Formats: sequence, C-alpha cells, structure tokens
Amino acid sequence: MKQNRMSIVVFSGTADKLTAVATLATGAVAMGMDVELFLTFWGLESFRTGATTRPPRIDPAFADYAPVMLELMQAKNVPHWLDTIRAAREIGAVKILACSATMELFSMKLEDLEDVVDEVTGVATFIERARESEMSMFI
Amino acid sequence: MKQNRMSIVVFSGTADKLTAVATLATGAVAMGMDVELFLTFWGLESFRTGATTRPPRIDPAFADYAPVMLELMQAKNVPHWLDTIRAAREIGAVKILACSATMELFSMKLEDLEDVVDEVTGVATFIERARESEMSMFI
Amino acid sequence: MKQNRMSIVVFSGTADKLTAVATLATGAVAMGMDVELFLTFWGLESFRTGATTRPPRIDPAFADYAPVMLELMQAKNVPHWLDTIRAAREIGAVKILACSATMELFSMKLEDLEDVVDEVTGVATFIERARESEMSMFI
Repeated sequence: MKQNRMSIVVFSGTADKLTAVATLATGAVAMGMDVELFLTFWGLESFRTGATTRPPRIDPAFADYAPVMLELMQAKNVPHWLDTIRAAREIGAVKILACSATMELFSMKLEDLEDVVDEVTGVATFIERARESEMSMFI
Repeated sequence: MKQNRMSIVVFSGTADKLTAVATLATGAVAMGMDVELFLTFWGLESFRTGATTRPPRIDPAFADYAPVMLELMQAKNVPHWLDTIRAAREIGAVKILACSATMELFSMKLEDLEDVVDEVTGVATFIERARESEMSMFI
Repeated sequence: MKQNRMSIVVFSGTADKLTAVATLATGAVAMGMDVELFLTFWGLESFRTGATTRPPRIDPAFADYAPVMLELMQAKNVPHWLDTIRAAREIGAVKILACSATMELFSMKLEDLEDVVDEVTGVATFIERARESEMSMFI
C-alpha cells in the first residue's frame, strides 16, 4: 500500500542539485505529502555544519555558466537551499536521515551536521520506507 | 491509483543524459505509456531555441571519452536527442513542461524555448501528477 | 500490480555513484526485494572486463575530495563496488541487464563485460518491468 510520501536519496552535493531537492521537498509538502531525505556521500558532506557559509559548488558540466547562475540567484533573492529546506519543515513533515555507512566512512558524528538532520540510519531502513512511497528519486 | 505514465525531472543538460531521457521517453510511448518531462535548471537551458546547433556537452567525469563518443554517435547516425523526442511525440503522448521557477531565474519566455515545450508550470503541479505515475525519475 | 522489486537505470560510471548502486542493491535484497540494474552509457562502460583494475573515477564536482575519499575507502576496507554487487547476488535476485543500444554504439559484445552481466536487452523490455517495480531510480 503506497504512502503519501516522497523519498529522495540525496547523493549529490552541488548547490544547483540541492536547490532542486529543496524545491521538490517544498512542492511535496505543499501538496500534503511527507518527505524523507536520505543523505549520502556528497549530499551528506554538504550538510556538514556551516553549509550556508561554504562557497557553493555547481555542476561542472556547466562550469562556464556557474558565475552567471550564482549572480542571478543572488540578484533574484533565491534563498539558500538549506533555508528552503528549513522553511519546508515549517510547512510539513520533512524527515532528514544521514546514511550510517557514509557517516562511518567520513568519521562523522551527528553533531558535525546541520541541526535539520534528524537521525542516522542504515540504507535498509530507508528502503523499507521508500518502497512504500508514492515517489522515490535519486538526486 | 497509479496512472500509466512516466514522469521525469530533466535537471541535467549534457547530451549523453538527454539522449537517455529521449530513449526512455521513446521506450515508454512504445509500451503505451504517457510521458511527462519537467525541464529545470540545465535541462531547461538545453531546450533553449537552437538546441541542435549548439556544441553538445558530455558528462565531465568521462571528458576523455567525449570525442570518441561524439564521433561514434555521428558515425552510427544516432539522431540528436531533440529529434528523438520529436519522434516520440509522433508515437504517443509526451508532454514537455518548463519549470516556472527556473524560467524566472533565467528570465526566459516560452518563445525562447524549442517548440516541443508545451507549457510553463510550477513544481507542485508536476508533483501532483508525478505521484500518480507508475514511474518517476530525476535525471 | 506493483512487484517487490527495485529497478535502477545505471547511467553513471563514477566509483562513488556505483558504490551507491551497490549499496542500494544490497539493502534491497536484504529487505527481500528483487533488483534489476539496466546498464547504459558510462554505467555500461564501467562494467567492461577488468572493472576492478581500472583507476576509479570520482564525481568531478568533488575532485578536490577524491584523493581523501579513495584513501578512506581503502583504509576502512570498503569493498570495490563490483565485489559488493557480487555479494548481493549471493543473497538475492540481482539481475544485470546491458542496454542493447549502448552495446551497439560502443561495438560491445557480452563477452567484453564482467561476468555478472546476465544479458543484453532493449529499453522497452526494461521499462515494462520497471513500471511494475515498487521503486525505480536513475543513477
């Protein structure tokens, strides 16, 4: 039985893709869906404390566009992806899970991560819930 | 109730990934499915008018393979991804939606885009339909 | 009627994303799900015979982290992604399909690929099964 939920594996760590994650999460809660983000690899690395102060990375396939895009995002007051995720959490249920295997690989502790991260969990637990979600994506 | 539909968020703008999008869309309509593409970020940028005349970008992780791959694609007459999408639209229902937030960020108008783009829409509208699709992917 | 299955289009060929594929496949079989991997483009190229002996590629957006990550993976004895996939195949049903269009583009034969690849198939056949899978992703 499918649940009213969007599950996303957040693997990538560039600001453009994380902005897409934040936008999808916002759209989903606006539609009354729950959201679960499973942070792994560069996605998890990007949630390390101080996320909004680090220089944003952009998809290297469009490195030539990066300066223009970052300028446009600033000029048009596009909020930082982390702030958009915080706002989505005000509207609805957005659970943020850190992949235990990546935590171990990078020797990370929960306190090394931004406070929006709810808990550390294994991939099997994530899958158990994602398979019952209406939408699941890998970003 | 799941619909006979494949929903794809087209975020990426490299020719290799757009060829994969076009191939999946073609396969889906061949199986009698409807397809909805939601163009955002570099995916939307790639649908700017003149798509077939711009030099193709390739996944930078395989930059060393790019010249060989582009040569092979030409030698084996692999059609341009936009032409494959046009052909898929002859076979079945392939709706192409432009993300309103990216349109605003890039100051784009519908007439700046290739004529296969049907309309501009918000992420919530896309999600509302994607959650009812049999398959949803982020590319 | 949804089947107890995870279907993944494996487009990418970097070691970090292939490790994520292997981990998701392992998690899925541990949960009693079947797994189907459809190898295309750089994903297929990465399964060419000798996969474990070639130098691993890493997401170029995090090129500066690559040496540290590869060192950590070795220090913490993270198995090669191909060995993790082999192990997942010992636990449950992990079917590995090579995309026929990419095989033709790269002039590949089944014997050019690692022996975990089960067969060559077209995208429509993959979609037919993926649309009935509980989870489908593009990596």
